[in-house]
Amino acid sequence: MNDAEQKMISRREAIIGAGKFAAGAAIVTLGAQVLPARVKAATPAAWPWGYKKLDVQEVGNLAYENWYKNFCCYAVVSGLLMPLQKSIGEPFTSLPLEAFVWGHGGAVGWGTLCGSLTGAGIATGLIAGKEGEAILNDVIAWYASTSLPIYKPAQPKAEIKNVNTSDSPLCHISVGKWMKKEGVAFASPQRKERCARLSADVAMRTATLLNDWADKKYKPVHGSNVKDHGITTQLNCMECHGDKVPTPVMPAPAK
Amino acid sequence: MNDAEQKMISRREAIIGAGKFAAGAAIVTLGAQVLPARVKAATPAAWPWGYKKLDVQEVGNLAYENWYKNFCCYAVVSGLLMPLQKSIGEPFTSLPLEAFVWGHGGAVGWGTLCGSLTGAGIATGLIAGKEGEAILNDVIAWYASTSLPIYKPAQPKAEIKNVNTSDSPLCHISVGKWMKKEGVAFASPQRKERCARLSADVAMRTATLLNDWADKKYKPVHGSNVKDHGITTQLNCMECHGDKVPTPVMPAPAK
Repeated sequence: MNDAEQKMISRREAIIGAGKFAAGAAIVTLGAQVLPARVKAATPAAWPWGYKKLDVQEVGNLAYENWYKNFCCYAVVSGLLMPLQKSIGEPFTSLPLEAFVWGHGGAVGWGTLCGSLTGAGIATGLIAGKEGEAILNDVIAWYASTSLPIYKPAQPKAEIKNVNTSDSPLCHISVGKWMKKEGVAFASPQRKERCARLSADVAMRTATLLNDWADKKYKPVHGSNVKDHGITTQLNCMECHGDKVPTPVMPAPAK
Repeated sequence: MNDAEQKMISRREAIIGAGKFAAGAAIVTLGAQVLPARVKAATPAAWPWGYKKLDVQEVGNLAYENWYKNFCCYAVVSGLLMPLQKSIGEPFTSLPLEAFVWGHGGAVGWGTLCGSLTGAGIATGLIAGKEGEAILNDVIAWYASTSLPIYKPAQPKAEIKNVNTSDSPLCHISVGKWMKKEGVAFASPQRKERCARLSADVAMRTATLLNDWADKKYKPVHGSNVKDHGITTQLNCMECHGDKVPTPVMPAPAK
């Protein structure tokens, strides 16, 4: 059985198998208690970890509820990976999803990459490897150009009036524009509700593209910012630079 | 043996143990091939995953070399976690470090959070959990206020002339200011060398704070941007807003 086949072992089989091993361990008398760690060290799971198509609405509901536990990055990581922990099991089951809470507020409140997108990056990187990068690229482009939030919870924790297009994947710009439009403080129930719904949106968009990818229907849409602009960029140049947008030094064209 | 004790199993014991299990598996005749995955499903490692003090110079050397394999985010994740894969073993050994390459260029080239800092967040989150957030917060504050790069490779892949203080954790701003100063393109060998050295710096700073934390000497320095400014922010307000820095709505003071 190769690694890819091992990934297909269901959660149910895994639980049954653990019982069988416990019986076997009684026969193996040398250091039986530490065998799990020892065995695993010799056989790490193949990467990328793989995927089983997700119920997009379930992913959104989970991300929304989980925002209120640990904020945006955790919301998206858990919205995407908790269902895979159930449907695939290992190696997803052993990943401590709380380890990724730090992405909140654009990295511990520094307002940089929206934590929901950090969460999408972590999940797609584990699930789909290099192909996950293309999916993340498209999720970021969609995030910056779409009026959010779209998701409507069945039982909202607060009511909000506005949606906004961020033109940027930055937490500070995305949430700042929305706070101005809504006229509320960062600590308000409305701002929290907006970020919870937006996290659901990002998780659902990511799940939708991953499902397309699983069906072999996914085609990357957004190109390379670096190749097009000669520098890493979020494409809203004039928003910070005004009309004095610098021209980066471009490499000499190939002869 | 509890989870914390299991973490202390050395790499050497793990290898020896795997051999013992192989012998034992011949006795356990039912589905022996899939036992490793099954066993692991029943006993995920305790989180946070823990730490063993790192050789800071080794971390820097590794991050520098690994930048040239998979760029900034991978450089820092691998610079910090590869030595722990050797010194601690599981669960670090099973984490596919290539899954975090996507952080390069501020997330797939979008110029947001410098990938070296994304890497520091992923590593500190797994190693130290909630306490890792404080360490990441301090690493980001240090990054934005320090002339970088500092690291000098024994065998540089390119020579560079300039250092710069970014005043920002954003890839675009950090690398853009440096490119302007150095007068080089993003695709130049100099720019690559600068980012490789800077990744070594971030990995080394993170390792230094983690070592202090392991020695119970670490005290968080940087406060909460959100509490101080009423919004997630990178603190260089005028750089984008000019002199028209908006005043966010602040919550009413507690009575």
